[in-house]
Amino acid sequence: MLQTWKLILAYDGTGFRGWQVQPGERTVQGELQAALGRICGESPLPQGSGRTDAGVHALGQVASFALAAPIPLENLQRALNRTLPPAIRILEAKTVRSAFHARHSAVAKTYEYRLFRGAICPPFLAPYVCACSWPMDVNALQTSARLFVGRHDFLSFAATDPDLASRGLDEDAEPDQRPTPRLGFLTEPPVSASIRTVFSSAWEARPSPDGDLLVYRIRGSGFLHHMVRNLVGTMLDVGRGRLSADDIPGILAARSRAAAGPTAPARGLYLLSVEYDEAVGGQHLSA
Amino acid sequence: MLQTWKLILAYDGTGFRGWQVQPGERTVQGELQAALGRICGESPLPQGSGRTDAGVHALGQVASFALAAPIPLENLQRALNRTLPPAIRILEAKTVRSAFHARHSAVAKTYEYRLFRGAICPPFLAPYVCACSWPMDVNALQTSARLFVGRHDFLSFAATDPDLASRGLDEDAEPDQRPTPRLGFLTEPPVSASIRTVFSSAWEARPSPDGDLLVYRIRGSGFLHHMVRNLVGTMLDVGRGRLSADDIPGILAARSRAAAGPTAPARGLYLLSVEYDEAVGGQHLSA
Repeated sequence: MLQTWKLILAYDGTGFRGWQVQPGERTVQGELQAALGRICGESPLPQGSGRTDAGVHALGQVASFALAAPIPLENLQRALNRTLPPAIRILEAKTVRSAFHARHSAVAKTYEYRLFRGAICPPFLAPYVCACSWPMDVNALQTSARLFVGRHDFLSFAATDPDLASRGLDEDAEPDQRPTPRLGFLTEPPVSASIRTVFSSAWEARPSPDGDLLVYRIRGSGFLHHMVRNLVGTMLDVGRGRLSADDIPGILAARSRAAAGPTAPARGLYLLSVEYDEAVGGQHLSA
Repeated sequence: MLQTWKLILAYDGTGFRGWQVQPGERTVQGELQAALGRICGESPLPQGSGRTDAGVHALGQVASFALAAPIPLENLQRALNRTLPPAIRILEAKTVRSAFHARHSAVAKTYEYRLFRGAICPPFLAPYVCACSWPMDVNALQTSARLFVGRHDFLSFAATDPDLASRGLDEDAEPDQRPTPRLGFLTEPPVSASIRTVFSSAWEARPSPDGDLLVYRIRGSGFLHHMVRNLVGTMLDVGRGRLSADDIPGILAARSRAAAGPTAPARGLYLLSVEYDEAVGGQHLSA
């Protein structure tokens, strides 16, 4: 009798080629699968709430899988934390109803993007922030951030990498599993495929002993691939005066990646938390 | 006409084989020498206030070297920070009297050792702390730390690695330069070689958003190789009850590495600051 497990995990993305298993690469999903194999003798592929790219961090990624081995609750978390590299930590492990699926059951996700504001970025922060020392109009950043709240077509902020043809637009889709919306060069994707709802989107100053951070937090129903990094790259162009907040509605309407700003570096991005319906997996909002 | 420079630098030791240049290895001294060469066309070997081992970090390491190129003050710092990897940052660059030497002119140094106290060490902290989740008697730690203050023979806390035969006992000595005190298997080193003065030695709790740290800070006239890590390893044995604080005087008196506790991991150690006489290099105490 298979038992479905839900894990909440944090990882430092620096040393990994992202979440998703790739042949010959060190990935978070791969490390987790291997650790399960060593502990239980079964190696189900853990399903993540979504992929994170190389260098992207997680404070509250969620994974699910099913095991036949009858493992006591506390033991799996402890055994995984003993087996996994220190760059991956299991914050919570629990058994859930078999209907639970880390990706399909998710109802909302929150990401955070951290900017370091200062002349010299401390060496210890470098892999965990985007350092920008230039002058920044924080009011303009805040105004742009508010314009993303609501139901919008975010196609202008979706990655256009070649990989997409096989994978679809969605941050949350995985190849060979949900290849429905495709971004080709000849056919325009259906409008619905790139519409997402953003519940909140705002910047906040966060003083820290190592220097002041400026942190963007966005909570939404789902995200297109590279969407948060493209939103941030575009807002940074507004903050430094290359674009105006007034340009944002036009960029959204253009439905073209070329209309928006650059992709902000992966190292500043954190998957903060994933929310679920109480009915399937219990709600989780990481601190 | 050569001009002597003094740099204060911070580095994340994780990706380096320590401070000191070694053939085929990525070291902080080597990166700094290479960056100077690219900027000035001269590659003097920067002298550090002392070596730091692989994985040891620095918040206020000091280096000195002489350049013939007449470089404006602000320019060298900016050029080095543009050229060096983000894991090494120059916090200050200034010209000093030619008598200044980062190692020989130093009158005191301060090191810090960071312990993470909690069940699950955040993945982002793992390279920067020693995680110990077991129960710890903090009063016993504090009592032991006080016993190291003063002028003592610290031979029991000096590294006994084979490397020492060529280099001497001193943390601050470099091979081929000051090979005076040797640690051999047949001859005992002279008493004076392992005597150091510790000005202060104490633990403090440091709450952080990622979890509570317990931080040891020691300021002294100089340190033997591995001395801080061996002091910490021994105090941790006291904190967990394997040794008593009452054993410390006997361990000092034994003048034998075998009498003391294990060497604490490099990743928790930080060179905080180096002090100089005003007359030669100006005083620096990092925050």
